Amino acid sequence: MQFQAGPLLGKINSPADLRKLASKELPEVCKELRQFIIDNVSVNGGHFGASLGVTELTVALHYVFQTPEDQLVWDVGHQAYGHKIITDRRDVFHTNRLLGGISGFPKRSESPYDAFGVGHSSTSISAALGMAVASNYKKEFEKQHIAVIGDGSMTAGMAFEAMNHAGDIPNNLLIILNDNCMAIDPNVGALKEYLTDIRTSHTYNKMKDDVWNLLGKMSKFGKSAQEIVSKLENGLKASLLKQSNLFESFNLRYFGPIDGHDVEHLVTVLKDLKDIPGPKILHCITTKGKGYSLAEKDQTLWHAPGKFDKITGEIHKKVSDKPQAPKYQEVFGNTILELAEKNPKIMGITPAMPSGSSLNIMMKAMPDRAFDVGIAEQHAVTFSAGLATQGLTVFCNIYSSFMQRAYDQVIHDVCLQNLPVIFCLDRAGLAGADGGTHHGAYDIAYMRCIPNMIVFAPRNEEELRNIMYTASLDSFKELKKAITIRYPRGEGVMPEWKTEFKSIEIGKGIQVLEGEKIAILTMGHIGNQALKACEMVADKGVHPALFDMRFVKPLDEELLHQIFTTFEKIITVEDSCLTGGFGSSVAEFAIDNHYSKPITRLGIPDQVIEHGEQSELYKICGIDAENIANTILTLK
Amino acid sequence: MQFQAGPLLGKINSPADLRKLASKELPEVCKELRQFIIDNVSVNGGHFGASLGVTELTVALHYVFQTPEDQLVWDVGHQAYGHKIITDRRDVFHTNRLLGGISGFPKRSESPYDAFGVGHSSTSISAALGMAVASNYKKEFEKQHIAVIGDGSMTAGMAFEAMNHAGDIPNNLLIILNDNCMAIDPNVGALKEYLTDIRTSHTYNKMKDDVWNLLGKMSKFGKSAQEIVSKLENGLKASLLKQSNLFESFNLRYFGPIDGHDVEHLVTVLKDLKDIPGPKILHCITTKGKGYSLAEKDQTLWHAPGKFDKITGEIHKKVSDKPQAPKYQEVFGNTILELAEKNPKIMGITPAMPSGSSLNIMMKAMPDRAFDVGIAEQHAVTFSAGLATQGLTVFCNIYSSFMQRAYDQVIHDVCLQNLPVIFCLDRAGLAGADGGTHHGAYDIAYMRCIPNMIVFAPRNEEELRNIMYTASLDSFKELKKAITIRYPRGEGVMPEWKTEFKSIEIGKGIQVLEGEKIAILTMGHIGNQALKACEMVADKGVHPALFDMRFVKPLDEELLHQIFTTFEKIITVEDSCLTGGFGSSVAEFAIDNHYSKPITRLGIPDQVIEHGEQSELYKICGIDAENIANTILTLK
Repeated sequence: MQFQAGPLLGKINSPADLRKLASKELPEVCKELRQFIIDNVSVNGGHFGASLGVTELTVALHYVFQTPEDQLVWDVGHQAYGHKIITDRRDVFHTNRLLGGISGFPKRSESPYDAFGVGHSSTSISAALGMAVASNYKKEFEKQHIAVIGDGSMTAGMAFEAMNHAGDIPNNLLIILNDNCMAIDPNVGALKEYLTDIRTSHTYNKMKDDVWNLLGKMSKFGKSAQEIVSKLENGLKASLLKQSNLFESFNLRYFGPIDGHDVEHLVTVLKDLKDIPGPKILHCITTKGKGYSLAEKDQTLWHAPGKFDKITGEIHKKVSDKPQAPKYQEVFGNTILELAEKNPKIMGITPAMPSGSSLNIMMKAMPDRAFDVGIAEQHAVTFSAGLATQGLTVFCNIYSSFMQRAYDQVIHDVCLQNLPVIFCLDRAGLAGADGGTHHGAYDIAYMRCIPNMIVFAPRNEEELRNIMYTASLDSFKELKKAITIRYPRGEGVMPEWKTEFKSIEIGKGIQVLEGEKIAILTMGHIGNQALKACEMVADKGVHPALFDMRFVKPLDEELLHQIFTTFEKIITVEDSCLTGGFGSSVAEFAIDNHYSKPITRLGIPDQVIEHGEQSELYKICGIDAENIANTILTLK
Repeated sequence: MQFQAGPLLGKINSPADLRKLASKELPEVCKELRQFIIDNVSVNGGHFGASLGVTELTVALHYVFQTPEDQLVWDVGHQAYGHKIITDRRDVFHTNRLLGGISGFPKRSESPYDAFGVGHSSTSISAALGMAVASNYKKEFEKQHIAVIGDGSMTAGMAFEAMNHAGDIPNNLLIILNDNCMAIDPNVGALKEYLTDIRTSHTYNKMKDDVWNLLGKMSKFGKSAQEIVSKLENGLKASLLKQSNLFESFNLRYFGPIDGHDVEHLVTVLKDLKDIPGPKILHCITTKGKGYSLAEKDQTLWHAPGKFDKITGEIHKKVSDKPQAPKYQEVFGNTILELAEKNPKIMGITPAMPSGSSLNIMMKAMPDRAFDVGIAEQHAVTFSAGLATQGLTVFCNIYSSFMQRAYDQVIHDVCLQNLPVIFCLDRAGLAGADGGTHHGAYDIAYMRCIPNMIVFAPRNEEELRNIMYTASLDSFKELKKAITIRYPRGEGVMPEWKTEFKSIEIGKGIQVLEGEKIAILTMGHIGNQALKACEMVADKGVHPALFDMRFVKPLDEELLHQIFTTFEKIITVEDSCLTGGFGSSVAEFAIDNHYSKPITRLGIPDQVIEHGEQSELYKICGIDAENIANTILTLK
């Protein structure tokens, strides 16, 4: 559904149009832009609060800077809807996150205004610094480079690595700290407290304001801003201006905090900052969900609420006659609490995804045993390892694609030390509308090559519960191995999910369906597509056997020997990359054991799969029931 | 060779013995400990400067804290020789880094005093915090947890992630910042400047000293240190003590800087700190190489000098009659400069390994085009991506096992965006004496599963030069893919290495040796072992053909079809993990193309390979010439 933009916004096809307006017209542009976002997201879904929070910033940045020549990097990109709308994508905005439509994140291939592709957090300072250093090297001294990063993203280590470098080499980078006290969930950590201190310290603010006003006044007398800043800094060296600030420790000039919702003031400040050379940071205070009161009140819920009635604020729920299977996420969240209530050794860790992972259920019930460590996957894993050295049973829940951030820590701090950390990889496989950056496509390949790592995928809710139970037993610790439990985003298949715990034998696959000639080997949830495929071909008199190997590592070699000696043809099906994935592990087994039965491998091909509904993406990869059925029929 | 320890050190079998001494005897212990390290390393090799720099800290920490109940985590672990010597490993210290001997790094399986296994940098705060939080949860409030981290390691993001968490939850963690201005090379970045500012700021130091003295005096009147600290802090809030310090921004109490070579003062300070609850940081100033003047003067050279004459300081060089092949590292360093002199687009990046990678050659000649970004692999990769968006040709050189730290950035910031960044993965394969943490065993598995990534391994110096040349051409950029060039630590095979540049066709393997029946498929340098093996079996009338596939991705499918239709048996040889590695890619090809020729896969098995000479480790993995020859003979 396409919405009509307001009269001002309707004429803005690119930032050049925006720049024709008078500064005093910008509040009206912001109002229209905000309304356009509300109209669209309420009907089409998507991320909501973040873009509302940076409406004024978005307008001010494109008004002041000469995008796309000046380069604007949005961190994460949840907040870039306004940016997309005023950079030539208003008329396609209703296709946001849909198959074949525009991406929910900035993407270089989509627009020259998207200076850097994002999706994961905290990359913006590094990327923009690279651009700034390149401009410096090319002597393009007029070119501006801006990274817009949230206080949540600022907790990830790579933001600090980038600041450490930015403060040490010639560049004109401008970092905008979009401080709204939130990641998806409320931001956590000492840094958050620190920023709050700055926001609330009147003395500090007053002093900064004085400096700022002075800077403004003196500029009018024709002195260069540079001269003024150095003069001020000399005078105030070793005093608050220089030393009182975390960011100034990194040799970044700090300005702020200022109101991120006063678009005219933002324009003035940004214009001034353009003339100040060197790396600098502008601290803007914003409210996530600004302008939509329900979203301001419950910022986590309204981060990405799904479709809703924009008037009443009622969020549309799926309606179904049949009893619904719960999401794997809910099963994880409820099960860890259930286990922890009986087993005092259990601890839960999430890097900034309490609500997404449902660890918030345990965090609420047992605040001393479940931790949100911030957007800090590396720390999350090594912190888990530290807990595990003390005999605790640690469930570390990280989205599959975010676990890429902690790969070394999994190898170096967990597996090399034989620590029995339990990794729950949420959003494994094809993540859906979030697209390429968010698919958990590579986890099987990158996890199964690590010694002392077990890799498991549950086919349903019961299996997720049982493997969590199994991994929490002391007998599991004795194996001295870590385990990866990967499961997809969304619903499983068991409405009656709260089954009694049974332990799972490590390394044992199971036969799901009896059959002949063809054996289909799957692992985990994708097995349900294969099961449907088997039902589809049964009508045609074809009856393949279906095995859920469950453990990609260790493979159930006994079962595999049986399969390879019994069946004529093998099909492997996985929601994971074909290169090095589950099918590859079966290929290794076949080769190493000199089996020459033909194997057909279905899975995610060696290319970036874009955004779309999960079911659409399954089709594209040929791992939906229908395509699997076709493969079976071709082979029969 | 085993050395005699001095009279005091000779009696110290564990820290319990150390604690029997009077504090005034500790300087003598330090002297003897330092001498013992010098004696041993001069004869056996290993890391040198770091352990000399923390001799006093090591002695003071074990003197004050009840190790191993109190938990001491050394960051990286280069500096832990003194720790090992006084924790029950003096008599085996001469086996350091040798096959079957003790590890050059702390290792949990080696000693209860090694609270956490290390090797890679910046893990200590996360790990020790995990331990501290576990103790807190278990109500073991007396238990102390100490992380010793260098200023170099402090530049890595995960240290900040950990501080952000440490300042936010109840724990008694003590972080010792071992500030010697060095990583392996001189430390870089804004943080270094900041620490230097602290060191040299007299006002600041004076004020801190006053506070410290006051704290000391008041303690004597029986008030608890906690009361005193809060009182002081209340009084000074928003002033220097609270706000002037980077670490205090993270809600860590900061103490220092103090002289890290005054062992008696260290003991006093550490005793005081024991009684101060909550997370805190002690800033110690040390000199890397302390006590061995040559090492103090050239700290990079003496980080790990190899064997040397301890009297004259002469470092022993390998002597050989034959002309020596250069190290791959030297070839990289000279070649990038040679290319950059002709191609102004070329830039070079290293995260803290200028001398190890030899990028220092270019950094010296072209300081505006070659950057050491600090121990910051994540930033290194995304910064490279940022440069690449501006059309520059970026060589990003990272040790294979350290690249694990930037895995997400390779996927998310480079490959998903089709940016042609050139990754040079140094120390790929079995790294040798550094052991399990440093082997570049997984890179093929974790790189080849990423879309838009080319993976290449050079067999000799010429191939390294030619692939670097090829990747620097504009025609390479048009492919819109990144490339991984992996090569091992140490010498290649071409004394006359400075050959003329020729471009390499992407995805083309080559036949190294004609032969019959058996085809050996290798990739890169390990092919030289296979070549020797072929020479060995030739005497026995066996003549396998040898192919260097060079590109693990894209595989040369044309050549593979030829091989699989011509030869009876295939052997793959790789210095990379068998699970998901090069042989696995050949297995995938065979399976997908319905070839049923037997394939034997040689490579690194699915276990942690410990430390030893590279040649010894090749043998253990069965990928040395002799073992390959045996495999050939078994198959013939």
